[in-house]
Amino acid sequence: MSPIKVYAHRWSQPCRAVIIFCRANKIDFEEVTVDLFKSQNLTPEFRKINPMAQVPAIVDGRFKLFESHAILRYLATVFPGVADHWYPADLFTRAKIESILDWHHSNLRLGAGTFVYYTALAPFLGLRPRPEATKHAEKVLMQSLARIESVWLKGDAKFLLGSRQPSIADLSLVCEIMQLEALGDDMRNKFLGGHERILAWIDNVKKATSPHFEQAHVFLFEVKAQMQSKAAVAAKLGASEASSKHKFASKL
Amino acid sequence: MSPIKVYAHRWSQPCRAVIIFCRANKIDFEEVTVDLFKSQNLTPEFRKINPMAQVPAIVDGRFKLFESHAILRYLATVFPGVADHWYPADLFTRAKIESILDWHHSNLRLGAGTFVYYTALAPFLGLRPRPEATKHAEKVLMQSLARIESVWLKGDAKFLLGSRQPSIADLSLVCEIMQLEALGDDMRNKFLGGHERILAWIDNVKKATSPHFEQAHVFLFEVKAQMQSKAAVAAKLGASEASSKHKFASKL
Repeated sequence: MSPIKVYAHRWSQPCRAVIIFCRANKIDFEEVTVDLFKSQNLTPEFRKINPMAQVPAIVDGRFKLFESHAILRYLATVFPGVADHWYPADLFTRAKIESILDWHHSNLRLGAGTFVYYTALAPFLGLRPRPEATKHAEKVLMQSLARIESVWLKGDAKFLLGSRQPSIADLSLVCEIMQLEALGDDMRNKFLGGHERILAWIDNVKKATSPHFEQAHVFLFEVKAQMQSKAAVAAKLGASEASSKHKFASKL
Repeated sequence: MSPIKVYAHRWSQPCRAVIIFCRANKIDFEEVTVDLFKSQNLTPEFRKINPMAQVPAIVDGRFKLFESHAILRYLATVFPGVADHWYPADLFTRAKIESILDWHHSNLRLGAGTFVYYTALAPFLGLRPRPEATKHAEKVLMQSLARIESVWLKGDAKFLLGSRQPSIADLSLVCEIMQLEALGDDMRNKFLGGHERILAWIDNVKKATSPHFEQAHVFLFEVKAQMQSKAAVAAKLGASEASSKHKFASKL
């Protein structure tokens, strides 16, 4: 059988979740990069793969699918080699995982995704800021992190729901939280510093999927470095502009 | 076996989807009203049912579950009387339905839910407006409706994906769109008027689940009437204020 095609961009946290899942489960796949920074998701060619113009999307033979959670469920079901803990057959455990996956969209995803987009990506790509949405997203993000910790990572839980092995929900949510790296270390630590259980959980997911987790995140850290150097240049320029304005003002 | 408990408020579109699903599939349940307008979702008692303080939530014996899509999947799986079309066992059809359910959260739900909240509910309950978020939500809503029609309701499709019978995705998305009723007829028609396939689809879902669909929506129409009469009083007051200001101005 020919490998499945995974259309992805490694800046995207749901894409990284799908890539890590495939690698960790030895699923044969071909990665096709759809560069979001170059708007390659908006081309007519890519819209034939996913009319919603979003990554990730997969093509398995004649079957096309988009939305990362749907893709993760599909891959966990169709590939017999995938261990049960990723998407348990047990009705009750699966229902609890579905509940986390659904909750994610309007909470952690909405908060973290929106906040990182307008705080880190928009200045980097020169996109319009949305201060009110950013402020709201920050509140949703803070609340989401607190709730993950108090509801699903109680006691000495290694993974969500107290499981001893990760599920697709662990992978999806941790990849989302990893996106906070793009904010720089200070701001990332402001969000995560007080959440020791979340920090331990990120580490557990990383270890359980190593070295694929680290490999899938190399690009994020590269972009983070570029963002930081661009911000440093802008700050320098801003400082020298402010300083020349000051000189000018002092001459008046 | 004792009936499941469904914690719900009929103002909430995901609650209505769960209630209609139970009734249409003859699932024995007890409805427990959690009045969102009285913030009953925020009580310590309800947080024991759902720590996220949201409806719907269910209790089935010792098993608790929240998030409407997770609940619909669970009910469709655990009750043997539920017909396959609601949540097909076929791997590929199910994956496509999962894709719609996941897409829903950050698109139709985000757009319609946010827009109705700030345009209809906030003035009704005296909550703070968020004009920027409302404007963004309107754009997301318009785009979502267009995409549902062009991607999933092609040709003479009765239901999403061209199915001949409804799935839990049809029910969830149509209940969301029904929330636009709260905007009043003019604004609802502004959004839906040009979307004939969506209007036909709403009607198909209604017919497939009648009379449960209509019954579950009685409360929404009652609130709509209250909103309209409150808005009319406010407009009258506003007009008389404006008119007295005008008189006052003309005396100056």
